[in-house]
Amino acid sequence: MTTTNHTVRLIARPVGEAKREDFAFADETIVALAEGEMLLKVHYLSLDPAMRGWMREGKSYIEPVALGDVMRAGGIGEVVESNQGKFAKGDFLVGMTNVQTYCVTDGRGFTKVDPKLAPLTTYLNVLGMPGMTAYFGLLDVGQPKEGETVLVSGAAGAVGATVGQVARIKGCRAVGIAGGAEKCAIAMEQYKFDACVDYKAGNLRKALKEACPNGVDVYFDNVGGEILDLALTMINRKARIIVCGAISQYNATGEVKGPANYLSLLVNRARMEGIVVFDYAARYKEGAMQMGQWLMERKMISKEHVVEGIDTFPQALQKLFTGENLGKLVLKVS
Amino acid sequence: MTTTNHTVRLIARPVGEAKREDFAFADETIVALAEGEMLLKVHYLSLDPAMRGWMREGKSYIEPVALGDVMRAGGIGEVVESNQGKFAKGDFLVGMTNVQTYCVTDGRGFTKVDPKLAPLTTYLNVLGMPGMTAYFGLLDVGQPKEGETVLVSGAAGAVGATVGQVARIKGCRAVGIAGGAEKCAIAMEQYKFDACVDYKAGNLRKALKEACPNGVDVYFDNVGGEILDLALTMINRKARIIVCGAISQYNATGEVKGPANYLSLLVNRARMEGIVVFDYAARYKEGAMQMGQWLMERKMISKEHVVEGIDTFPQALQKLFTGENLGKLVLKVS
Repeated sequence: MTTTNHTVRLIARPVGEAKREDFAFADETIVALAEGEMLLKVHYLSLDPAMRGWMREGKSYIEPVALGDVMRAGGIGEVVESNQGKFAKGDFLVGMTNVQTYCVTDGRGFTKVDPKLAPLTTYLNVLGMPGMTAYFGLLDVGQPKEGETVLVSGAAGAVGATVGQVARIKGCRAVGIAGGAEKCAIAMEQYKFDACVDYKAGNLRKALKEACPNGVDVYFDNVGGEILDLALTMINRKARIIVCGAISQYNATGEVKGPANYLSLLVNRARMEGIVVFDYAARYKEGAMQMGQWLMERKMISKEHVVEGIDTFPQALQKLFTGENLGKLVLKVS
Repeated sequence: MTTTNHTVRLIARPVGEAKREDFAFADETIVALAEGEMLLKVHYLSLDPAMRGWMREGKSYIEPVALGDVMRAGGIGEVVESNQGKFAKGDFLVGMTNVQTYCVTDGRGFTKVDPKLAPLTTYLNVLGMPGMTAYFGLLDVGQPKEGETVLVSGAAGAVGATVGQVARIKGCRAVGIAGGAEKCAIAMEQYKFDACVDYKAGNLRKALKEACPNGVDVYFDNVGGEILDLALTMINRKARIIVCGAISQYNATGEVKGPANYLSLLVNRARMEGIVVFDYAARYKEGAMQMGQWLMERKMISKEHVVEGIDTFPQALQKLFTGENLGKLVLKVS
């Protein structure tokens, strides 16, 4: 076998947003597989805000991508050659394929998925990392009780949309924050939030107060910055804030804006806690089975925003930060 | 009976530090007690950082002191007249006496203390609110495990000193942060911290790294600001940060400085949680009995810094913010 693998390698640490010049695009040749390896043809890549963090040096929950390495990405690949026994030719696998058209792997960290049960892209969304992040972050860290108000930012994004849907299924009042009327309409009509507030429409404080007449018991934060600060003013006693991300701060070149209203945690005996989805790896199956059932029962939906062409990776990723994507952003490779 | 009561009333909302002009000092006359009331002669008043917050308008865990009212304060009084059956003349009671030389009360919220078991001032320190705050904040919110590192700011202050001593008794490495060599020496020699770092000595980051070679599992924060931000860079996975206070921010006239490094909560799957001691009222007895036993066994000490004269209240309170007090600050009234 000789396969041409088109790769996108990180060659510079981005300052501010990740730009085209921070990557190298090349055709490389895969000549042979070692014993125990297999070759995956990559179909879809997951584009996530966390990727911006992976490009940054410094202590985090995962090693940064080394300069010169193929950019890290979750994805879905199809086994086209196999020198090992666990997976067979034709299997579809989800795992860290990275930003390339082919992936050589020994299969560790990969899971077989069934394209007959759900569209492939669902395995990068509700049945993948964003879904697991939402499910375990909300239920395990947030501990919402029936009748409570769950507020989530990035409500039309991959994690936020699932948080809202799970909250609603669990009998909570699901309130979203999203950017623009279109996203709010999607949150209300497609994800069935009880309310969704447009942070670009002005007077967010007043709109949130109206949307959360009983205050906020659980706030699932994907954005940080001013919105986190505002949410802190609305929390109830013993509220739980899940720190899942801070997309408003990821491209910051200066100091991150800390939540000036954090003393609301004291006043309200509330807690703010971080979640990293990898900690729940042993329970992914539980989350996928439950949400798979809800998808089949049409209690929730998985909505992806698909863009095409591996070389558009830097611009496509940027859509997450400009807020252009409507649903989980997925890059179709082939 | 006719008793002259010297009162200190809040007459203006302080801007920045509370100043003498924010209070009115007057002699008032108590003519008679109603049925069910008693008269307490106030011996000692507790001076606490939280008092600055009580002078401020806005939603908090307790109503602000109304303008014109006697300034709120915990204290110890002796029953000198009684028109009720629960407490007898000569009893010493701890409760909200407020800043005055005499207090008329129906006894609600007051507890009898025994001056033979411990010096009166101990009931405003280890056996009082600061002690309960430290005990339940550390053990209930912080959940320290034997062998873990517990870091506490304001280590020579009333709450911090007890946090360090309880942490040490529970088999943790107790590390303090205090302002100045004298306070650090007191923390080490009298409270028996394992280490205490002087934040005024420069290069706090390096000193903390040396004092906490295994990182920080529990951080008990009394100060907020830059020190909280630094502590966030040192926490271990699944660390617990107890938000007890933010003395560095209480006199702030601008926006509170939020912790810019709060995303360390995400990276480390850590949590930051507020504590208000009043929530543990039903368990004060448990805390007092346990710490009373430790005091008798000489496993811990209760150290008070006593200043005299009710009219010095505004200046005396300010010592908490300039850091002049060595031990729990108590105002001797009579």
